[in-house]
Amino acid sequence: MARYARIKNTGKPKVVIIGGGFAGLELVKSLGHADVQVILIDKQNYHTFQPLMYQVATAAIDAESIMHPFRKVFEDQQNFFFRLAEVECVNTQEQLVETNIGLIRYDYLVIATGATTNYFGDKQMEQNALSMKSVEDANCLRNTILGNFENSLQLDDHEQLNSLMDYVIVGGGPTGVELAGALSELRKHVFPKDYPELDFKSMDIHLIQSGGELLKGMSKEASLKSQQFLEEMGVQIWLNRRVKSYDGYTVTLDNGETLISRTLIWAAGVTGNPVQGLKPESLLKGNRLQVDAYNRVVGYENVFAIGDIAAMVTPENQQGHPMLAQPAMQQGELLGKNLVRLFKGETLQPFVYKDQGSMATIGRNKAVADLKLFKKELKSQGFFAWLIWMFIHLVSIIGFRNRLAVMTNWCWNYFTYNSGNRLIVGKKQENIPITETISHKAVI
Amino acid sequence: MARYARIKNTGKPKVVIIGGGFAGLELVKSLGHADVQVILIDKQNYHTFQPLMYQVATAAIDAESIMHPFRKVFEDQQNFFFRLAEVECVNTQEQLVETNIGLIRYDYLVIATGATTNYFGDKQMEQNALSMKSVEDANCLRNTILGNFENSLQLDDHEQLNSLMDYVIVGGGPTGVELAGALSELRKHVFPKDYPELDFKSMDIHLIQSGGELLKGMSKEASLKSQQFLEEMGVQIWLNRRVKSYDGYTVTLDNGETLISRTLIWAAGVTGNPVQGLKPESLLKGNRLQVDAYNRVVGYENVFAIGDIAAMVTPENQQGHPMLAQPAMQQGELLGKNLVRLFKGETLQPFVYKDQGSMATIGRNKAVADLKLFKKELKSQGFFAWLIWMFIHLVSIIGFRNRLAVMTNWCWNYFTYNSGNRLIVGKKQENIPITETISHKAVI
Repeated sequence: MARYARIKNTGKPKVVIIGGGFAGLELVKSLGHADVQVILIDKQNYHTFQPLMYQVATAAIDAESIMHPFRKVFEDQQNFFFRLAEVECVNTQEQLVETNIGLIRYDYLVIATGATTNYFGDKQMEQNALSMKSVEDANCLRNTILGNFENSLQLDDHEQLNSLMDYVIVGGGPTGVELAGALSELRKHVFPKDYPELDFKSMDIHLIQSGGELLKGMSKEASLKSQQFLEEMGVQIWLNRRVKSYDGYTVTLDNGETLISRTLIWAAGVTGNPVQGLKPESLLKGNRLQVDAYNRVVGYENVFAIGDIAAMVTPENQQGHPMLAQPAMQQGELLGKNLVRLFKGETLQPFVYKDQGSMATIGRNKAVADLKLFKKELKSQGFFAWLIWMFIHLVSIIGFRNRLAVMTNWCWNYFTYNSGNRLIVGKKQENIPITETISHKAVI
Repeated sequence: MARYARIKNTGKPKVVIIGGGFAGLELVKSLGHADVQVILIDKQNYHTFQPLMYQVATAAIDAESIMHPFRKVFEDQQNFFFRLAEVECVNTQEQLVETNIGLIRYDYLVIATGATTNYFGDKQMEQNALSMKSVEDANCLRNTILGNFENSLQLDDHEQLNSLMDYVIVGGGPTGVELAGALSELRKHVFPKDYPELDFKSMDIHLIQSGGELLKGMSKEASLKSQQFLEEMGVQIWLNRRVKSYDGYTVTLDNGETLISRTLIWAAGVTGNPVQGLKPESLLKGNRLQVDAYNRVVGYENVFAIGDIAAMVTPENQQGHPMLAQPAMQQGELLGKNLVRLFKGETLQPFVYKDQGSMATIGRNKAVADLKLFKKELKSQGFFAWLIWMFIHLVSIIGFRNRLAVMTNWCWNYFTYNSGNRLIVGKKQENIPITETISHKAVI
């Protein structure tokens, strides 16, 4: 028996959006004054500002500063309705979304479900590695790091100590680079103050990258400089190396070399997070939905996809746009305008990606930035890039309150060399109980 | 086989403190320059500023603002050692504390394990009620409240709606009064903005108090005024009533009347939280340890107890001191000084409680305060008391960073009428699945 979720019927066309990430959020905003009923469905009641998640994981800022409850963000938007629900599948025949709170009818459906960690089918890795796709993940990583040091105090076996104090980060993209940098800063300025009984000279941070350079999407200068910065900060970089297996203790690389670490952070790739119920032919390699220039899912009239989940494949661009915040936000904004045009019978405007550049921060006063401003390219590495990075991230955070919280924390951390609240609260990862570890000496 | 926890041996007398609440924290501070090794054991790596926990539960401030990692608080104190561990029992014969990380030897043992919620043996209540003794509890309450409203959107049955939207708070002490007030403010200013689809006129807040007045320990004026404030704010107060039973849905009072609510908050009493292994005769009614005027546990030479767990019973005071932050902090501070005197062979100073008064805040511009300053009594209710309450709580929070965070949030909330981050993240209480509830009409 079909049960409908209760949502007030405003009599307006229903635009149902699945997922409140960057794309979904911009779309809701863009429909602010549209004569429609906007229904956002998300399994959380908040939007996460993902670019600063690594700072939550490294105890630099509070998790709550990068979380924005949807109801608060849109409390003044009259046409906005939110439902906390998990989507089970979509039924495009009947124009229904099936959720755990019942069926939700749509006139226009927008899939903005983003991406999830890609373990490339490696179940053992999925079970043993930590990832960075949600605030819960970030908190879990923070708890694990701090818990590792608490446990280290009870050990004197050299290998056992290394297994707790060494970190392996897989993936040399922005997340991997930023995490490696932040951990290295903590090793230098913070951890030795918290744990005077431990010797942090023996704490190693390994960054493993399958390709020949870090930050692959960025300029040669940015790649090289980020590598130099990290090496100066004592991060061990392994280029052209892949991880073959990880059992929660021994990391085996593709050339047979091994590293010992109980904490491997997997930042080596993402894959689309599609919903059930769409035609299989809409789904491309990488689990992304093929969309046309108006973000309409190929084969449908009234189903759209935006953000990471959407692949706008053209003869010139076989990959679709990069899975980043910028194209997601731009697509969300344009789709809002296009939907209004659609209702008015006007011509839709095709999506053109305006790449404003990219950047990554490595540490204190150290960042790399490739900016595209007013059709000019500006490449910067070091202090100036770091200032730009901070400025852009601060203005991007939603809400004055959270912006103030992050800014206060940054200033505090900068001047005191004593970052945030190093709390162990909630879940942490424990792959193998320390007492049960089989001592097998590492090759390296 | 006995296994010892690894702690650097400084060769100094070992003062082992179990528990880092107000009493334990003040003791560590007080021993800052003492020629001893201070070892603090706690099952969390942070101190909690309990008086503001109800504000975390009501989404006014972030949880992290009232949590202070011990290692950070004492990072400049050379004689301080922290161990994250759970105490299993103490062995006073061998002068050992048995913990999950191994045995810890002491020369002086201080038990500062505080108090825990007292359900007076009612197992059903313990299972179904929410309590407010930890940050996890406070977070769980916040998640439950917000989750209730999300669920309410899916219901139209009147009783079912009430079961989710009505709250029952048991206990008219500071926690109960402050929670009732905060919920009432949210009902007036915040929830209707977040949930325009719900009718908050039908949200009831019940406060049940076994005695004839609220805030029993305070002056007649404070009791009456707090009651008046709460009644003006629409809180339903039940004086001289006890809860007979609660099955997660129906609250049955001692006179047979019933209330319907899925959320009952139990703030009706605390009981000592003693460690195993002490002589049974040390333990008084209420699970508190009997101590002499120097906080020495009766029957021991080198075992002390401070804070809520300690009952300094005298012919004049059969109850011991009130289980509050003030006596706990004063005992911690004095014990630190007395231990130094003990090492020097000087005469110890007996504890004399300096009651500086008590206060509770009810809402915006509304608090009650009975202060004892310079031997004068100052009673105040309303705006001035509210200012004093804020000032005293702000200066009591440890660390400039957290103080700033709380102050910023308060200012923000005051001027915008839009309190903090209303996030649902982590655990929430679900007594009975909504679909399974048996509809039985409430008497009231």
